[in-house]
Amino acid sequence: MKFIIQREQLIASVQDVMKAISSRTAIPILTGMKIDVRHHGITLTGSDSDISIESYIPAEEAGIVHVENIEEGSIVIQARYFPDIVRKLPEKTVEIEADPNLKVTIRSGKAEFNLNGQDAEEFPHLPKLQTENSLSIPTDILKSLIRQTVFAVSTMETRPILTGVNIKLENNTLSFTATDSHRLASREVPVNNAEIEFSNVVVPGKSLTELNKILADTEEPVEINVTNNQILFRTKHLYFLSRLLDGNYPETSRLIPEQSKTVLYVNTKDLLHTIDRASLLAKDERNNVVKLTTKSNQVLEITSNSPEIGRVAEEVTVQSLEGEELRISFSAKYMLDALKTIDYDDVKIEFTGAMRPFIIRPTDDQSILQLIVPVRTY
Amino acid sequence: MKFIIQREQLIASVQDVMKAISSRTAIPILTGMKIDVRHHGITLTGSDSDISIESYIPAEEAGIVHVENIEEGSIVIQARYFPDIVRKLPEKTVEIEADPNLKVTIRSGKAEFNLNGQDAEEFPHLPKLQTENSLSIPTDILKSLIRQTVFAVSTMETRPILTGVNIKLENNTLSFTATDSHRLASREVPVNNAEIEFSNVVVPGKSLTELNKILADTEEPVEINVTNNQILFRTKHLYFLSRLLDGNYPETSRLIPEQSKTVLYVNTKDLLHTIDRASLLAKDERNNVVKLTTKSNQVLEITSNSPEIGRVAEEVTVQSLEGEELRISFSAKYMLDALKTIDYDDVKIEFTGAMRPFIIRPTDDQSILQLIVPVRTY
Repeated sequence: MKFIIQREQLIASVQDVMKAISSRTAIPILTGMKIDVRHHGITLTGSDSDISIESYIPAEEAGIVHVENIEEGSIVIQARYFPDIVRKLPEKTVEIEADPNLKVTIRSGKAEFNLNGQDAEEFPHLPKLQTENSLSIPTDILKSLIRQTVFAVSTMETRPILTGVNIKLENNTLSFTATDSHRLASREVPVNNAEIEFSNVVVPGKSLTELNKILADTEEPVEINVTNNQILFRTKHLYFLSRLLDGNYPETSRLIPEQSKTVLYVNTKDLLHTIDRASLLAKDERNNVVKLTTKSNQVLEITSNSPEIGRVAEEVTVQSLEGEELRISFSAKYMLDALKTIDYDDVKIEFTGAMRPFIIRPTDDQSILQLIVPVRTY
Repeated sequence: MKFIIQREQLIASVQDVMKAISSRTAIPILTGMKIDVRHHGITLTGSDSDISIESYIPAEEAGIVHVENIEEGSIVIQARYFPDIVRKLPEKTVEIEADPNLKVTIRSGKAEFNLNGQDAEEFPHLPKLQTENSLSIPTDILKSLIRQTVFAVSTMETRPILTGVNIKLENNTLSFTATDSHRLASREVPVNNAEIEFSNVVVPGKSLTELNKILADTEEPVEINVTNNQILFRTKHLYFLSRLLDGNYPETSRLIPEQSKTVLYVNTKDLLHTIDRASLLAKDERNNVVKLTTKSNQVLEITSNSPEIGRVAEEVTVQSLEGEELRISFSAKYMLDALKTIDYDDVKIEFTGAMRPFIIRPTDDQSILQLIVPVRTY
C-alpha cells in the first residue's frame, strides 16, 4: 500500500474522521483509523460504534490531482498521533506507505515517521444501508435544523430517549424536536416529493452535534437514509452513520399551549442582553432564575435577586404587549439558549399564566418553536 | 461615594487589578476590589498578599474626561461579579455609587445592579515603598527580559528559591536568570547611570508572569524599586507590588561551560520545527526525549523512538558544524521553550560532550543565554 497525497486534503479528511474516534473504547482497533487505498481514491474510516464516519478523497477531481503513485491496499493507523503528524509535516505533499509486516512509513520532505500499524481486516465492517427511499435536503438547512434543536436534549441518562432529537417526516414536512422536559425546541421545514414517512426516529444529540461540526455551510444536498436502528447522512465525499436510540419518543404536541393570555413582541437582542445581565449574579446557582414582570407603557422589568450578593433590575421596552398582567420566573440559561438560536430580529412570546409553559417564536417565522417551563418561586 | 466613568477605561483597569485577586484567600476581604474615589481620579486595588496591584484612572488626561460627577469616598466591591458586570453593561458610561450602609449601585442605561459592599477601612493598606534609589527601563525591554527567562523557573516547591527569577543589577548591567536545575535561561541588558546595585533579589515567577500580562508593549519607562522583601514596578498609572522570595539564589555562573567541543550554527525555525515533529510520538511520556546526532556535510539528524508507537527521524542542514562528532539526548520541551523565546533568525549551539550542559544563543546577540542539561540514555 502506498500513495502520495496533498497534505491539505489529508488534514481536512483526518479531522472529520477523528470526530468518530474515541481513545476510550472497548474495542482496541477502534482507537485506530482505517486507510483504504484504491486507484480511484483514498477512504479514511473511524468509528466509536455509536458513530461511524468515512471520508473519501478522490485521486482526481475536476482536473485536480489529489492523490498520486497509488499502490492499492489497506492499513489501520494509530489515530492518537496521526492528526498532529499530518498537521506538522513540512511539505505540501505526504507519502504514506505500509509494508506486509504492517509497518507504516509517513514521509514529507526530510521527515520520516515509522509507525506500527494494524491489520485492516480486523477493523469492523460498516453496515451498508440498503434502502432505496432517501430524503435529500440542502446541507445548510440540515445544519440549522440541528443547531436550533439539539441544545435542548437532555443530558441525563434517566430517560435515555430524551438525549436524542426526534426526527419526523410526515405530510411532506421534516421536523426536528428536542426536549429535556423543562424546555422544548422544534423546527420544521417543507420537503418536496418525499417518498417516505417516519415518526419515531430518535438520533443521539451527540451524533448530530458531531455531524454539524463536519458539514460545510453549503447548499449542496445531504442524502438521509433511515433503517430500524441506524441513520445515514451522505454528502459527496462523506458517509456519516449513527445508531438510533431505542424506545418511543414522547408525544410533545400536547405540551404546547394552544391559547395565550399575555402576548408580547420584542427585539431579540434587547431581550437577550437584558437577560444575560440579569443572570450575572445568579450564575453559580443551580437554577439561574430571573423574573419577568409586565409593567404599563409596553415595558417589561427583568430582575434577579441573590440575597448574599445583591440584586439586578432592568427595564426593556417592547414593541407590543397585550393581555393579562404577568409575573413569571424562569431559567435564564434556557431563555438565552432559545434566543441565541433564533436568527431573527424580533420574537413573539406567548404566555398562559405564571405556572404554564410559554412559547417563543420569531415574529416572522412560525416554523421555529421554543418552549420553556417556568420555575415556581415563593 | 459616587462617580460616572467611561466604561472602556473601567474595563481595562478592572482586568489589570483582577490579576492580583484570588477567590481562594485566607483573608475574606481580599476577594474584593477596593475602589477609592478622589476628585483627581479613581484608584482600583486588588491583592492576594503575594501580589498587589493598583490601577489609577485620572479624572481627566490630555484634555479627555474619563471620570465625572465625583463625590469622594471608598468601598470594597465583590470582585467575583464585577468584571462581568462592567463588561456586559449596555452603555458607554457607568455610574457607581455607594451609600453609608455599604450598598453599592451600578447603573448603565436602564440596567441597575445593587450589590453588598464592604468597608474600605478593612482593606489592608499596601506598603508604600520608600526608596529613593530606583531603576528605570523601557517597558518593552522589561517584557522581553521576563518572557525570555520566566518559563525556566521551577514549578516544584522542593527548592522554593528556584520558583523565582533572580534579578541582578551590577556594573551597570541588569540581568534576569531562571533555572529549575535542568535548564537555565538568562538575559542581560545594559543600564545607564544606575545609582544602585543588588544581586540577591528573587521575584516569584508567577508575579512576573502576571506583570507581563498587564504591561503594554511600549517604550514608556517602568520604574523599579527594591527593598528587603518587596519589589515595586511602577508605570504612569500602574503600581505593581510583589513580595520577594526568601533565601539565597544559587550561583549559576559556574554551570555555564567556558569551552566547547562541538559548535553549530543553524536556522532557529528549521531546528524548532524539526524538534517539534520529533517530539510528537513521545508527547505523553514524562521525559519527552529526542536525540541529536551530527552527520557529515553539515547535517544533523534528530530522532525519537517510542517502542510501542514508532520512530521518527529527520535531517536538518545547518549553516556550520565544527568540532567533535556528537550524539546527545535532551528534553524536546526544554529545547522548544528555549528556541521559541529567541527572536532571532539564527542560533549558535555549543556542546561540551554528550553528558555536559549545552548552550544556545542567538548568533548575533550574546545577551541571551539558554542552557539545557542533557538526558542520559543507555
